[in-house]
Amino acid sequence: MNKEEFLEMYLGLYINHHLVLEDMKAGSHKYTVIDVRNAPKEMKGDKIKDALEIPAKELSERLQELSKDKIYVVYDWTGGTILAKQALLILFKNGYEAYELAGALEGWRGMRLPLEKV
Amino acid sequence: MNKEEFLEMYLGLYINHHLVLEDMKAGSHKYTVIDVRNAPKEMKGDKIKDALEIPAKELSERLQELSKDKIYVVYDWTGGTILAKQALLILFKNGYEAYELAGALEGWRGMRLPLEKV
Amino acid sequence: MNKEEFLEMYLGLYINHHLVLEDMKAGSHKYTVIDVRNAPKEMKGDKIKDALEIPAKELSERLQELSKDKIYVVYDWTGGTILAKQALLILFKNGYEAYELAGALEGWRGMRLPLEKV
Repeated sequence: MNKEEFLEMYLGLYINHHLVLEDMKAGSHKYTVIDVRNAPKEMKGDKIKDALEIPAKELSERLQELSKDKIYVVYDWTGGTILAKQALLILFKNGYEAYELAGALEGWRGMRLPLEKV
Repeated sequence: MNKEEFLEMYLGLYINHHLVLEDMKAGSHKYTVIDVRNAPKEMKGDKIKDALEIPAKELSERLQELSKDKIYVVYDWTGGTILAKQALLILFKNGYEAYELAGALEGWRGMRLPLEKV
Repeated sequence: MNKEEFLEMYLGLYINHHLVLEDMKAGSHKYTVIDVRNAPKEMKGDKIKDALEIPAKELSERLQELSKDKIYVVYDWTGGTILAKQALLILFKNGYEAYELAGALEGWRGMRLPLEKV
């Protein structure tokens, strides 16, 4: 595995916010966003519009809420944590297609994209 | 190496704060936390309770302060920097068991876990 | 690929700010820094001194502005985003030597290193 292959593997874990936003605007529901933050509701404050709230620590027990026909997009507070990747691994191991949202909630918020109260 | 194996390798570099906190509360001293920030003391302000202070840039020369019987947990300011991973690599190359603290100091502080003045 | 090799591959994508700063001070122009943020000028505010401004989304179309004799150092807002790595991959695929700036703009600013208005 060379640097290029390594980077492609790494970047292949992510999805760009543009794709999620276009899907949201078109109402095509190709992607389902999941907020995997483990924090209590009062700490979360808001979340990405229409995102499911499934804390990473509950994900393994709540897989029946998901569908193999959807593509899942998971996010945590920032891109500097590992929670979204832990959630990804659970989803991969159970046969779901999933990506980590590039930039995480921090990036989404910074670009003033649609949020809603939790 | 597929996506799943890649993620497992990546996540295997990290340790969850829960494990460190439980060890801290139980007083079992299985883990020894090392603050590897290169910043001067006055910039650091505080650090994780009982953490050793060994800046990453001094780590290679201070390995004699460490023990092969301990498991080391290294952290930097945030999870978006590479200092903790540079420290991990030094520790691996010298035969120590070590992990990067998931969420880094930023996450530990955000969850209001035990800190102390440097 | 073991943990050590994985870490070496990962860390090999990065360059330390020290090397960039020394080159800047010596005026040797070994490295050329590229600000790959996609944000509009008014949001960027400032950038690393002497950095080229080539948003990641324009990079593929602006490769003729670059030289194979230079080593490129790309950065985004923080180390928790993937934009710099996307830029790196484009540069690698086109035969350029390039690295991601460790700590990103956030780290550079935090250490009060030279900035200039965009």
